[in-house]
Amino acid sequence: MSKEGIYVSEAVIRRLPKYYRYLDDLEKVGIERVSSKELSRRMGLTASQIRQDFNCFGGFGQQGYGYNVSELKKELIKILGLDKRYNLIVIGAGNMGQALANYVAFEKEGFYIRALFDINPKLIGMTIRDIKIYDLDYLEEYIKMNPTDIAVITTPRQEAQAIADRLVTSGIKGIWNFAAVDIEVPQDVVVENAHISDSLFTLSFKTREDIKLI
Amino acid sequence: MSKEGIYVSEAVIRRLPKYYRYLDDLEKVGIERVSSKELSRRMGLTASQIRQDFNCFGGFGQQGYGYNVSELKKELIKILGLDKRYNLIVIGAGNMGQALANYVAFEKEGFYIRALFDINPKLIGMTIRDIKIYDLDYLEEYIKMNPTDIAVITTPRQEAQAIADRLVTSGIKGIWNFAAVDIEVPQDVVVENAHISDSLFTLSFKTREDIKLI
Repeated sequence: MSKEGIYVSEAVIRRLPKYYRYLDDLEKVGIERVSSKELSRRMGLTASQIRQDFNCFGGFGQQGYGYNVSELKKELIKILGLDKRYNLIVIGAGNMGQALANYVAFEKEGFYIRALFDINPKLIGMTIRDIKIYDLDYLEEYIKMNPTDIAVITTPRQEAQAIADRLVTSGIKGIWNFAAVDIEVPQDVVVENAHISDSLFTLSFKTREDIKLI
Repeated sequence: MSKEGIYVSEAVIRRLPKYYRYLDDLEKVGIERVSSKELSRRMGLTASQIRQDFNCFGGFGQQGYGYNVSELKKELIKILGLDKRYNLIVIGAGNMGQALANYVAFEKEGFYIRALFDINPKLIGMTIRDIKIYDLDYLEEYIKMNPTDIAVITTPRQEAQAIADRLVTSGIKGIWNFAAVDIEVPQDVVVENAHISDSLFTLSFKTREDIKLI
């Protein structure tokens, strides 16, 4: 990988977690090598597209013999940064915030939720699996004292932009946004949307019998 | 709209919920008309792309005067099918299943979770906001007795394909999949993935300083 940076398209980025999941599945059932043909079938891509994807990262695997599953998985772990630890905080300790805090599987991948924040006095002071719910007023001070990689917004949509502004001012560079609104941030801040109601609307739309996908 | 069906691309479908949210926001703050220029700015599209999107559905609004917010919103409600009621069931009454069942906002849009299913004896028989958690063994019989539009899978990934197979056999045509695995279904069944851990991995990847988006 060059020191100047890795140039990669949004489409490739979206496929990386999927590669990782497949390789993890293969490894779990004891498969050591996967042919580029089988990998393409499972990914729904051509072998040449897969080669191009991997070339963004310097390329790996031997085409003729297929790919070594464990080695390729290790490479993807490195690429995705899943060999590191991330400190997360969650703004909004409602249903979604609590579900995320309870979801231990993220920790296996290195993502640790360290604190929740809310404005509801009934929630402030409570803990979820030892993770404390703080008063939202304490947000800036908390971030100053505790290095935080990613902030998760699970507030009502009307609050989301104001929260994002406070996070950006506090120096947060990664925001995972569950609020059903598109927040605006400076260019050096990454926002990843998990708009789950959009996903539901899309599904109900596609189940309409008169809709034909082109 | 023609009786033969509406031909629409995946990209347009993905934008529909976003249009709907923006118009809803505008309506809430009392804005009656929106220029195509302002709509494009907020959607991050050109005015011509927006016109093309709307043309899939017969086109609406008067270009010169902009769009009437309430009328356009009403059209989008019809297109997205948000003027109808949908019966949902959730397979897996863990953190995510419970969070979804507690999330009342879906009901405002016409999506009603009617039942949850689990294999955990501690959960079976419990209710969440009057929504009962049933034994997974009862799944097929429940669907036979209760018209169900959408089934939500929130089980561990290893169980997801088997559950999907049972849902398909029971005649379910829409599956909302939260399990971190790509399930396979026949062509006449629609699957919408909400792979939230993929979304988190993508975010952490993008926060890497050496990554340049092309």
